[in-house]
Amino acid sequence: MYRRGVLVSENDSPLIKSIAVVGGTGKEGSALAKRWALNGYRVIIGSRSADKAEKSAAETNEELNGEYLTGMANEDAVQNAEIIVLSVPYSAHKSTLETIKPYITGKILVDVTVPIQPPNFTTVHVPEGKAASLESQAFLGEDVKVAAAFQNVSFVKLSDPQGDVNCDVLICGDDLGVKQEVMTLVEAAGMRGIDAGPLANAVAVEALTPVILYINKQHKIKSAGIRITGLDD
Amino acid sequence: MYRRGVLVSENDSPLIKSIAVVGGTGKEGSALAKRWALNGYRVIIGSRSADKAEKSAAETNEELNGEYLTGMANEDAVQNAEIIVLSVPYSAHKSTLETIKPYITGKILVDVTVPIQPPNFTTVHVPEGKAASLESQAFLGEDVKVAAAFQNVSFVKLSDPQGDVNCDVLICGDDLGVKQEVMTLVEAAGMRGIDAGPLANAVAVEALTPVILYINKQHKIKSAGIRITGLDD
Repeated sequence: MYRRGVLVSENDSPLIKSIAVVGGTGKEGSALAKRWALNGYRVIIGSRSADKAEKSAAETNEELNGEYLTGMANEDAVQNAEIIVLSVPYSAHKSTLETIKPYITGKILVDVTVPIQPPNFTTVHVPEGKAASLESQAFLGEDVKVAAAFQNVSFVKLSDPQGDVNCDVLICGDDLGVKQEVMTLVEAAGMRGIDAGPLANAVAVEALTPVILYINKQHKIKSAGIRITGLDD
Repeated sequence: MYRRGVLVSENDSPLIKSIAVVGGTGKEGSALAKRWALNGYRVIIGSRSADKAEKSAAETNEELNGEYLTGMANEDAVQNAEIIVLSVPYSAHKSTLETIKPYITGKILVDVTVPIQPPNFTTVHVPEGKAASLESQAFLGEDVKVAAAFQNVSFVKLSDPQGDVNCDVLICGDDLGVKQEVMTLVEAAGMRGIDAGPLANAVAVEALTPVILYINKQHKIKSAGIRITGLDD
């Protein structure tokens, strides 16, 4: 059977993966969650506070006029999903990883975190582990497969689920199968995904975000992005 | 008076700046040199060997059917130009800076170097100083103004002086006036330059090159590039 255009199994659980968006009450996370939910994914909004997560999910469900999302504390969200998307400020990155580590073994982590040091939003900051996603992989160990994606996408463009984002999503990771899963997520959110190489290359992708924020500031816009050119040459 | 479409002063020295391309016998450097020379700049090809530089300049002059370029040893090239463009393999970066340091005080250095570690051309390598251009600035001191640019441009597209490069040039630097000079150089080479922030942001721009080389390899192409989107929103 089909539900919202997506093939689902007879017991009504989608054949496509379930997603927990840890930090899903934030601007980037909630915009992604909305797009995936509208495309038939079972999406759980995660937050440090279950109340806050439930409230955020309820607000989005009201906006979308349907029961698309649920909200849970981060630990429960991770336990109840196959793919974990991490979208938190860098200052909460380490502590959030500590919270979810017991529940994430064997799962995929898509790290959206950008290692910005406020108030310098427009200057590249290279963290100790070179990239937030490399720090995630090092901390969580080999039983968790980490990919990096979505760092360069403006939440302003993302938050309108029908809007054209006009930004490619560079996907980094050391596991080809995981990158293919992420590619599916990128396309489900309405964007073009591009395999950008091993997780080590997330240094470039994460560092590009402060550059984009600098360009936004200089041009008094809110949604600069990037496109890879030459693919059709 | 005008020469090749460019306003020059009465004693025939152009009002526009003179450029030394250190490492100008390489693919990227020689392609840039050719474009600037064709646009009226006085361009000196620099190489460790004066003979090699003279030979390279002569070959390009023959190709272009005119006396566009001269060739000199790197030290002499730097002494005889106002803007120094550094385009060398990262393995020669430090030693080349040592060679030119005595002659570059008060001048502008446009660093094109990408800190790649062969044979891993498609994996980001973060150097000790975080970016080659940051290492240049630290080594040369405050009397030299360093900018970073042109790292993401494919020499394949660049080497045809009439060809459309289809890649934006992200310009990083701590001096706004210097960035404006570099913007002029970018436009003279037929591309769109974008102010990408302070020199610290060169981390992103330099790291993007192995990502582009990875994409080239995956897609079996030679000239992927990047565009910043959303500037006209």
